[in-house]
Amino acid sequence: MVGLVLVSHSEQLAAGLRDLVVTLAPGEVAVEAAGGTDDGRFGTSYQRIEAAIAKADRGDGVVVLADMGSAVLTVRTVLDDRPRADVLLIDAPLVEGAVAAAVLAATGAGLDDVSAAAAEAREVPKF
Amino acid sequence: MVGLVLVSHSEQLAAGLRDLVVTLAPGEVAVEAAGGTDDGRFGTSYQRIEAAIAKADRGDGVVVLADMGSAVLTVRTVLDDRPRADVLLIDAPLVEGAVAAAVLAATGAGLDDVSAAAAEAREVPKF
Repeated sequence: MVGLVLVSHSEQLAAGLRDLVVTLAPGEVAVEAAGGTDDGRFGTSYQRIEAAIAKADRGDGVVVLADMGSAVLTVRTVLDDRPRADVLLIDAPLVEGAVAAAVLAATGAGLDDVSAAAAEAREVPKF
Repeated sequence: MVGLVLVSHSEQLAAGLRDLVVTLAPGEVAVEAAGGTDDGRFGTSYQRIEAAIAKADRGDGVVVLADMGSAVLTVRTVLDDRPRADVLLIDAPLVEGAVAAAVLAATGAGLDDVSAAAAEAREVPKF
């Protein structure tokens, strides 16, 4: 199963989104939150992101989504340090991309399809 | 100042996003969270949304953002029951739209500009 890592400047936001995604996805899904700094302030943490990727990794790849700005930069630094073709940062809206990706990952879809679902969430009208 | 209401199926996500947005926006900004059901489960609440709109309303209009599906439907029901030209549900990504809208609202921009900022967040690449 493809894993999913949710990176936000807010620990509370990332944790809440993780719980929501787990509730919405059919069956089990490997979703990890990496929110806030190491001491729980607003910001992002290299260590938290690295640990979340390791935990979400079930051998079929990991999709990483980030809220904005420096969260994206921190993820890219982690991925630059240990480049892997099966760990992908996707340019997608955090909440909407996470839900789309998790629903597909839970069905057993592959990394390409889960990545595409996250990215396509940008284009889906809400009403 | 234009107010902002953040509607999510998750109380924790909405509260975390509200705190993040308040931290990021320059100066004071009227942002209210309406997450979860009346008894704190996943879902949305007519009453919480109605109360959040009233609280965010400083007389210059309110922009409402929602995460997905039934959150959108509940907001529309609230707005159908008490139609106001200055309370607008905007089709935007929840996190990214909220940050863009709040930053602009805090500068004193009007309802049209704040709404446009939220909607345009859909198109902004993250990297």
